[in-house]
Amino acid sequence: MRQSQGRSGALDQPVRVAVLGIGNVGGALVSLLLNEGDAIAARSGVRFELVGVAVGDASRARAGVPPGLVTGDAKGLVSAPDVDVVVELIGGLDPARDLVETALAAGRPVVTANKELIAAYGASLADVATASGVDLLYEAAVAGAIPIIRPLRESLAGERIRRVVGIVNGTTNFILTTMSEQGLSYTEALGEAQRLGFAERDPASDVEGHDAAAKAAILASLAFRCVVVGTDVPREGIASVDPVDIAFADRLGYVVKLLAVAERFDQDGGENDSPEISVRVHPAMLPRTHPLAAVRGAFNAVFIEGAAAGELMLYGRGAGGLPTASAVLGDLIDAAHHLRSRSPARVAPRVEARVRPDDDLWCAWYLSIDVADRPGVLAAVAQVFGDHGVSIRSMEQVGLGDEARLIFLTHVARAGDVRLTIDGLRQLEVVDRVGGVLRIVGDQDED
Amino acid sequence: MRQSQGRSGALDQPVRVAVLGIGNVGGALVSLLLNEGDAIAARSGVRFELVGVAVGDASRARAGVPPGLVTGDAKGLVSAPDVDVVVELIGGLDPARDLVETALAAGRPVVTANKELIAAYGASLADVATASGVDLLYEAAVAGAIPIIRPLRESLAGERIRRVVGIVNGTTNFILTTMSEQGLSYTEALGEAQRLGFAERDPASDVEGHDAAAKAAILASLAFRCVVVGTDVPREGIASVDPVDIAFADRLGYVVKLLAVAERFDQDGGENDSPEISVRVHPAMLPRTHPLAAVRGAFNAVFIEGAAAGELMLYGRGAGGLPTASAVLGDLIDAAHHLRSRSPARVAPRVEARVRPDDDLWCAWYLSIDVADRPGVLAAVAQVFGDHGVSIRSMEQVGLGDEARLIFLTHVARAGDVRLTIDGLRQLEVVDRVGGVLRIVGDQDED
Repeated sequence: MRQSQGRSGALDQPVRVAVLGIGNVGGALVSLLLNEGDAIAARSGVRFELVGVAVGDASRARAGVPPGLVTGDAKGLVSAPDVDVVVELIGGLDPARDLVETALAAGRPVVTANKELIAAYGASLADVATASGVDLLYEAAVAGAIPIIRPLRESLAGERIRRVVGIVNGTTNFILTTMSEQGLSYTEALGEAQRLGFAERDPASDVEGHDAAAKAAILASLAFRCVVVGTDVPREGIASVDPVDIAFADRLGYVVKLLAVAERFDQDGGENDSPEISVRVHPAMLPRTHPLAAVRGAFNAVFIEGAAAGELMLYGRGAGGLPTASAVLGDLIDAAHHLRSRSPARVAPRVEARVRPDDDLWCAWYLSIDVADRPGVLAAVAQVFGDHGVSIRSMEQVGLGDEARLIFLTHVARAGDVRLTIDGLRQLEVVDRVGGVLRIVGDQDED
Repeated sequence: MRQSQGRSGALDQPVRVAVLGIGNVGGALVSLLLNEGDAIAARSGVRFELVGVAVGDASRARAGVPPGLVTGDAKGLVSAPDVDVVVELIGGLDPARDLVETALAAGRPVVTANKELIAAYGASLADVATASGVDLLYEAAVAGAIPIIRPLRESLAGERIRRVVGIVNGTTNFILTTMSEQGLSYTEALGEAQRLGFAERDPASDVEGHDAAAKAAILASLAFRCVVVGTDVPREGIASVDPVDIAFADRLGYVVKLLAVAERFDQDGGENDSPEISVRVHPAMLPRTHPLAAVRGAFNAVFIEGAAAGELMLYGRGAGGLPTASAVLGDLIDAAHHLRSRSPARVAPRVEARVRPDDDLWCAWYLSIDVADRPGVLAAVAQVFGDHGVSIRSMEQVGLGDEARLIFLTHVARAGDVRLTIDGLRQLEVVDRVGGVLRIVGDQDED
C-alpha cells in the first residue's frame, strides 16, 4: 500500500475486505462498510473497500449488497488476488476453519467473530498467523461489542491475572433476569426470551452452557497464556435453576447468574511458570453488591481480578448484529494499520497450564433440601455435612405441609466433599430431594 | 535493539526505562520493575531495565531503590544516552511539560499518568511525538487501572461515539457514596474520606471538579478527536450537595454522582465533520438502574454510548499506587513493542469541534425550593416555571413547620430556561431559598 495520505487522513489506497457470511453480523458490517465508509475513513484513517461477500446461496438477492459482490465461492474469495483482509462471519467449524487457515497461510489477516472456531483451534490458527506475520483478531468472538480481548492482550499484558468471571451469554442472563424480576419459571422465561428474539428456537447451545464454555476457554487462554479448548471446559446449564432458589437467593442478598469462570491458583509463579488453573461454566449465587450482579437482561460483562490492577469490569452488549459488527470493525482497523506498518498484533508467549480437578475447587455453597418434617431430621442431615467436613454457615427451615425445606449456606468447602455430602443426603430415608445446589462466588470472606 | 529472542520469549536486549518522580505510583512501578522483571518478561515478551529514577531530593534514601539509580537531575536523565523509554510521574505542568517534550523531541517514547499535562498540552505533545515517530501514552491519566484510553483509541476507532459519561474522581464518589449510604453531611463525609486517605488535606482539586474536568477533557479529545483543554471545561463541585437532596433522590429512584460528561450532538456528520460537542463536570441524578449508579466508594467507571457498539461501561480502581502503576506498565509494554517494530501507536486525524453553550443544553432537572406554607404559593411558583417554558413532570410537597419544601422534577428543558426560572423564583417574596438544583442524566425517556 502507498504511504501517502489523502485529505481525509485516510490512505488513498483502500484496504480491500472480503466478508464471509452475511447473517446478522455480516449484514450489519457490510452496511457499515458500504454506507459509512467516508466517516470511518475520517475517524480511523483507513478507507475500506468491500470486494466480495461469500454466501451459501449466491442466487438469492441480499438487500443493500451490490449483486456483483456476492459469490458462492468462499474458497475462491479468500485466495483472490485483490483481497487484503478476510472477515469470517460464517460461524461453526466447517468450512470456517479451512477458510481462515487458507487466508492466514496466504498472508492475509483474518478478523473473526467465531467463538467456536477460536475456542477449538485458536492456538493452531494463531501459529499459522504468526508464521505468516499477519493478524488473527477476534474481539467480536467474546462478549460482542465489549472491548475484552484487546485489554487482556495489551492493557493487561504485564499483569498477573488471578481470576476472570464473566456473564458472557446474553440468552441465559435474560432468562435468569426474567425469572428473578418477574418470578417466572425457567420454561416461561425461556418462552419469553424466544418470543423477544433473545433465544433460538433450539436454545441448547445457550442454556446448556456450550456458548459460554467456548468463551470461557478463549478468556482463559488469553488471561493465562495457555491453550484451553472449549469442549474441555466443564459446564452446567441453567435448566435446573428453580425460581424458588432464585427467591431464596434474593432473600439472602444474592442473585443467580450463569458464570464463566477462569482462575489461577498459584499466586507467585516464576518466569517460566506453568499455572494451575480452573476453567468452568455454571450457575452461581453472587452477592447483590457485586458489580456483576447489576448486569441485567441480555447484557454481558467480564470481571477481572489482577494482582496489580485490582478489580476491573467491562460491560456492554454481548450480541446483536450492529454491536458485534462494531467490534469486527475495530479489529479491521487494527488489521489495516498493522498491514500498513508490517507489524502484526503481538502474541504472548504460551505456557503449559495444569487444570485443577473440579473436586479440588473450594467455595461456599447453597443447598436446598426437602425433608420429612419430624424431630431428629436436622440432626441426621447435619451429621452428613459433618461427616464430609462441610461446615454449615447458616440454615433456614421453611414448612411445606408434611415436609420441610432446609436451606443451607456452607462455609468454603471442597467441591468433592460437597458432592459426597449430596450423595450421602440422598441416601437418607428422611430426605425427599436435594433441590437447588449452587456455588457462591464473589463473597469477600468466602473466596 | 536486537531481534533475537531469549528462552523466556523476551528480547535479550532489555528496554531501558527512566522514571521521573517516585510518589505512590512511581514507587509501585519501580517495585514492579525491580521485583517482577522475570514474570513481566515471561508474560509480555519484554524485559525492562530500570536505569534511573529522578527525584526532587536525591540525598534522601528511597526504600527498595538502589541509590545508584537515583538522581536529582531529571533533565539529564531524559537525555541520557542509555534511556529507551521515559515514564513521567511527577504530575503538574512544570517541569513535567518540559521534560516530556524534551524526551519526545529526542525520539524517546513517553508514558505518563499526568492528567493535568495531557489535558493542557496533550495535542501539542502528541504532535511532537508524531514528528519524532514515537509513542506518547497516557492510559494511567484517566481512571487509573481501567483500560479506557486504549479502547477509545483502538477498539472504538471506527465508532461514532455519542456520549461518554464518567465517574472519574474516586474522592468525590467516596464522599457521595458515604453521604448516601450513611446519611452524613458533606463535611462529615469529607472528613471520613480524609481520615481513610481517600481525600487530600486540601481537597479542592477533587471536590471542586478540577481533577474530573481534566479527565473529561482527555476523554472528549479522544472520543471526538478534537482539542479540549481541561481548564476550559465548565465544572461544578460537590460541596453544595445536600444530604436532604440525596435522600429525596433515593426516594425518587435516583443516586447522586459527580459526572464528567462529553457528548456530541450532530448524529450524522460527514467525512470532515466538525462535531458540535459539550464537555462538562457536575453532580447529577442518575436512575438507580443505570450501570453507573452501582459504582460505589472510590471506584471509577466510564460509560460510553456508541452508534454501533451501543452502551459500554468500563469499571475499576481509578487511583492508588499499584493499580495506576499497572496501567503505566501496560503502556510501557506497548511502547517497547512499538520501539521494536518501529511503528508507534496510531494517532487519529484531528477535527475542529464547536462547543455548544451550556445554556443550550437540554435535560431534565431536580429542584428543591423552600417556600412559605400558605395558599397560592404553588400557583406562583408554577407560574415562574411556565413563564420560562419549563414543564413540570412531578411535584412533591414536604411540610417544614411554617415553611414547605417543594421538590420538582422537570421534563427535559433548556438549561438557560432553567437558569431564568431559578432567577425568577429567587425574586418571589414567598420563596425563601432555592436549594438543590441537579441535572438528571441517563433517564431512558428524558435524554
